Amino acid sequence: MARDLEIRPGEAAVQPPPPTDAGLVFIGRIHTPWTTRQETPRQGRLDGPVCRIEIFDPWVPALQGLETYTDIEVIYWLHLSRRDLTLQSPKRDGAARGTFSLRSPVRPNPIATSMVRLVGIAANIVTVRGLDCLDGTPLLDLKPDRCQFTPLAPPKPFKIDE
Amino acid sequence: MARDLEIRPGEAAVQPPPPTDAGLVFIGRIHTPWTTRQETPRQGRLDGPVCRIEIFDPWVPALQGLETYTDIEVIYWLHLSRRDLTLQSPKRDGAARGTFSLRSPVRPNPIATSMVRLVGIAANIVTVRGLDCLDGTPLLDLKPDRCQFTPLAPPKPFKIDE
Repeated sequence: MARDLEIRPGEAAVQPPPPTDAGLVFIGRIHTPWTTRQETPRQGRLDGPVCRIEIFDPWVPALQGLETYTDIEVIYWLHLSRRDLTLQSPKRDGAARGTFSLRSPVRPNPIATSMVRLVGIAANIVTVRGLDCLDGTPLLDLKPDRCQFTPLAPPKPFKIDE
Repeated sequence: MARDLEIRPGEAAVQPPPPTDAGLVFIGRIHTPWTTRQETPRQGRLDGPVCRIEIFDPWVPALQGLETYTDIEVIYWLHLSRRDLTLQSPKRDGAARGTFSLRSPVRPNPIATSMVRLVGIAANIVTVRGLDCLDGTPLLDLKPDRCQFTPLAPPKPFKIDE
């Protein structure tokens, strides 16, 4: 399986600190057509297949109002990713780049963000197009697209003063 | 302090499961001009003040190559946020909406994502414009803007077959 143990020429791994600074709760699970990392696309496409996002209890009421958006941001946990590479060589050509200059799943905190097109919401299932993750991927969050969303509270009186 | 304990009319809180499904490591700290939640803007602006993102060891080498992008995605942890509200009333008017239909900091996993403009990188400090978080906010990840980034590995042969 790619990226489990292999270190390619030019890559660098570190002994990462224990991941105990904060804890996550999986709030749902993503169902996609892709069951191996080899067949999973590297980036989602808005004309890609419909995928189902299942929301777990007790979070289902938090979906209220999400249907008013066409585009939503999905945040999920890349549960199979190693977390120790600082330099990576995606092309396996010895030319390595820093992890923060890549959107690779391998990162110190393997959090993925995707912008997807909302297809529908029924009970605890949100259907979307545009995902790029393995079937069974744990869900961390859903938010309206930042471009479509206007904060609902009145603006603060604070002035920017550099 | 707003949102610490208060439940506004129309809001709903749950007893959330323990956040032990996965663990995070704070990879840096964000330095901004805002020291209270009251003065922190609700959304960042690309013409906002320059903010400094400090990267901790051992992750500094992972910055290599990030300087080739003008826009980067910053993922950070809203460490002061409560995590138990499913319905929220941002206007305090009794009209509540689901947490997933808001970009409020209050969410089961208080992860924020911002698109920012890169100003510069020097040693372990990344300077940017466009952030909207409190001074001292823990950093989780940096990635190139998804629109500017082209995956570097060759495309997979998998065909979409709905």
